[in-house]
Amino acid sequence: MRMFDMIEKKKHGQAMTESEIKEMIDLYVAGEIPDYQMAAWTMAVYFKGMTDEELGALTLAMAHSGDMVDLSAISGIKVDKHSTGGVGDKTTLAVAPIVAACGEKVAKMSGRGLGHTGGTIDKLESIPGFQTEISTDRFFEIVNQIGLSVVGQSGELAPADKKLYALRDVTATVDSIPLIAASVMSKKLAAGSDKILLDVTCGSGAFMKKKEDAASLAKKMVAIGERAGRETVALITDMDTPLGSNIGNSMEVEEIVHLLNGEGKEDLRLVCIALASNMLYLAKNNGEETVTMEECEKMAEQAIKDGSALQKLIAMVEAQNGDVTVIKNPDSFKKAEYYYDVVAQHSGYVVHMDAQQLGISSMILGAGRETKESEIDFAAGITMHKKTGDKVQVGDVIATLYTEKYDTISEAEKVLREAYEIGEKKPEMEKLVIARVTKDGVTWY
Amino acid sequence: MRMFDMIEKKKHGQAMTESEIKEMIDLYVAGEIPDYQMAAWTMAVYFKGMTDEELGALTLAMAHSGDMVDLSAISGIKVDKHSTGGVGDKTTLAVAPIVAACGEKVAKMSGRGLGHTGGTIDKLESIPGFQTEISTDRFFEIVNQIGLSVVGQSGELAPADKKLYALRDVTATVDSIPLIAASVMSKKLAAGSDKILLDVTCGSGAFMKKKEDAASLAKKMVAIGERAGRETVALITDMDTPLGSNIGNSMEVEEIVHLLNGEGKEDLRLVCIALASNMLYLAKNNGEETVTMEECEKMAEQAIKDGSALQKLIAMVEAQNGDVTVIKNPDSFKKAEYYYDVVAQHSGYVVHMDAQQLGISSMILGAGRETKESEIDFAAGITMHKKTGDKVQVGDVIATLYTEKYDTISEAEKVLREAYEIGEKKPEMEKLVIARVTKDGVTWY
Repeated sequence: MRMFDMIEKKKHGQAMTESEIKEMIDLYVAGEIPDYQMAAWTMAVYFKGMTDEELGALTLAMAHSGDMVDLSAISGIKVDKHSTGGVGDKTTLAVAPIVAACGEKVAKMSGRGLGHTGGTIDKLESIPGFQTEISTDRFFEIVNQIGLSVVGQSGELAPADKKLYALRDVTATVDSIPLIAASVMSKKLAAGSDKILLDVTCGSGAFMKKKEDAASLAKKMVAIGERAGRETVALITDMDTPLGSNIGNSMEVEEIVHLLNGEGKEDLRLVCIALASNMLYLAKNNGEETVTMEECEKMAEQAIKDGSALQKLIAMVEAQNGDVTVIKNPDSFKKAEYYYDVVAQHSGYVVHMDAQQLGISSMILGAGRETKESEIDFAAGITMHKKTGDKVQVGDVIATLYTEKYDTISEAEKVLREAYEIGEKKPEMEKLVIARVTKDGVTWY
Repeated sequence: MRMFDMIEKKKHGQAMTESEIKEMIDLYVAGEIPDYQMAAWTMAVYFKGMTDEELGALTLAMAHSGDMVDLSAISGIKVDKHSTGGVGDKTTLAVAPIVAACGEKVAKMSGRGLGHTGGTIDKLESIPGFQTEISTDRFFEIVNQIGLSVVGQSGELAPADKKLYALRDVTATVDSIPLIAASVMSKKLAAGSDKILLDVTCGSGAFMKKKEDAASLAKKMVAIGERAGRETVALITDMDTPLGSNIGNSMEVEEIVHLLNGEGKEDLRLVCIALASNMLYLAKNNGEETVTMEECEKMAEQAIKDGSALQKLIAMVEAQNGDVTVIKNPDSFKKAEYYYDVVAQHSGYVVHMDAQQLGISSMILGAGRETKESEIDFAAGITMHKKTGDKVQVGDVIATLYTEKYDTISEAEKVLREAYEIGEKKPEMEKLVIARVTKDGVTWY
């Protein structure tokens, strides 16, 4: 294989063979293919795409470039859940406990946030003492004992993806749907779960702005998972408006505790139930028993109602050395030093919110990382009192900003105001769960 | 300017501004833009093209990245001639003396050959003693005294093009028409002539295989030249069959001497007259006098007929320290040690020749460079006794191979045989001069 020929092939829209792709990835990781050739190849992929066969081979080659996690020490069917990211996207914190409360195992490796999107690991670390870096043996032990554990990525998962992503990030080739699909799925395949539920977010706060693009990405990821022998389902969910009320690390944990206490915002509750019941559906339809989606939904709702999901969250925090008092009494979370109420200057309806702008506003307040080296203020963030569809009057508090750094407030307010669009007419609302994608196709809701 | 944004722009087919392009090229030459970003950008250009404004700015930025030759020490209008390359393409050796014999100045910088294409500098260096590296002052002096000089590129002409071309060469982005146009024209603009005649070759031995692509390249180059204030004309000429009879360095010089003695092959003579008369037309229509193309053709033919063109070639060889005895008596050129007659195995007509394969065959014999470091055998090469359109009988010698290395013959023969296609019917012949392209459009002949 000569890399020159591979670029030439891709440039003309021809398909590479499985062995060519494997060799290319191996040589790239070994430093024997230079970045400039890989950059030309990725740009050709941006324009010409990849076949399902190529994409399957690329994803497997990237997955096998590092450690392949073996979860066989954990009994039962392990279902992974992955979100393509968003603003105020705290669903994992509720979904994992709900699924564990219903008797299934969740052994989840999660990431940190960057830019306007948050990361589950940062949110969990806002719980004082909570350990996200624990040994693999202890990780398995916790999952076997209590049914769930969420940890940071240990070892070297898909280093080829890490190297290729870093290159795409500086060569304007991140927004290639096949390359996004291969990137996400290479890590999922390496992470070792039996089945995979994908939450493909869509809208102003998500990477995919349009439903069609989200569906195209979802289909590609499902095809990759199924081709690799892992049953894979994707939900396309709305991320045009951030979920729930809070954006910010400890503020989102607090909101999840309220949700698991039966007091959550309806939009957040709906999406968490949909994700949890789809995970349960994957886990429980294991060839031995058969359950319907309705039964899974009822189980998930019951786990909130009877408090068993909250108990699972408490058990995980305890097992990972976190301070459970902030879970038992979320008011005891350390509060940010400054807060500032943003007041409506016009009356009408919130007709649109730009979730990405809200994410940037919360990042400015200290809740997110501008660069990989930035430090997070766990208590910083935003509470949205008014969201898309709500009526507002001049003088209403639409949002409250929280920060440890007083001088960030004016810029954060400016960005937040730009994110809120106030109009005269109540807008039509998008469905929260937009579609479900399986190997059999797309079901639009 | 952030290079990331420039890649993003180009990816979406948006135009860069003149100052963005200039800054990009300056930073790339300074090593402040890495190759991987430039590679992604060139691949985006491959797919999305460039506007005439962008192409003009890119070409000027590349031209100005190094020395800009000042030919003002040479009196009169200086017309440059450039061929996009081919096999057995020896026209410069005849055209420059013809134009000089008609009273115009030719101050030409030329290149070396690589791969299956030859270079004028290598051909001239096959003349014993001939100097292609001479001082700029001496170069100007020779042109002022005798009307012509052909030298190797001195100083640093368009180093940005050199760096970018080397990158394109390994990232499969050489075959981008706008980038080819910018590459050629950046060197032409830096080389300082007042007017430019381009010979855009087309067919199996040329970079452009199709007439439409050749026309598209020609139009872009003419537009760049005119935008930069240099009157530019392009001829599209046939390179499906190598010109004349000989491929190989001293063998081509020998053939040119025969041509200037009035004994040349008709195809070679026709193309040389067309190129010379177009150069004369550019030089002589200088605002002070007006001549027709027919008058220019007559002048060029007369310069062959009366021997004045041959005298100019002899004067140049003398001025550049070459041994004029090989020009005065080309039989005295050192002959290759071995020769081998390739005999027809079928009867019929030569219906097609693959000029690129013939170039490769001659390279195998020692007449060309496989890599930049390869040494050339000046006497090696091929004489084609039969060419496209000719009738052949079994046993006819179709070509003779010349080499210093006996063991190259069998492979060279094999490649040469693949290049000759013998069929039953006499083929229709393509015109030798296919089209003329000026700022006013394309005239197809």
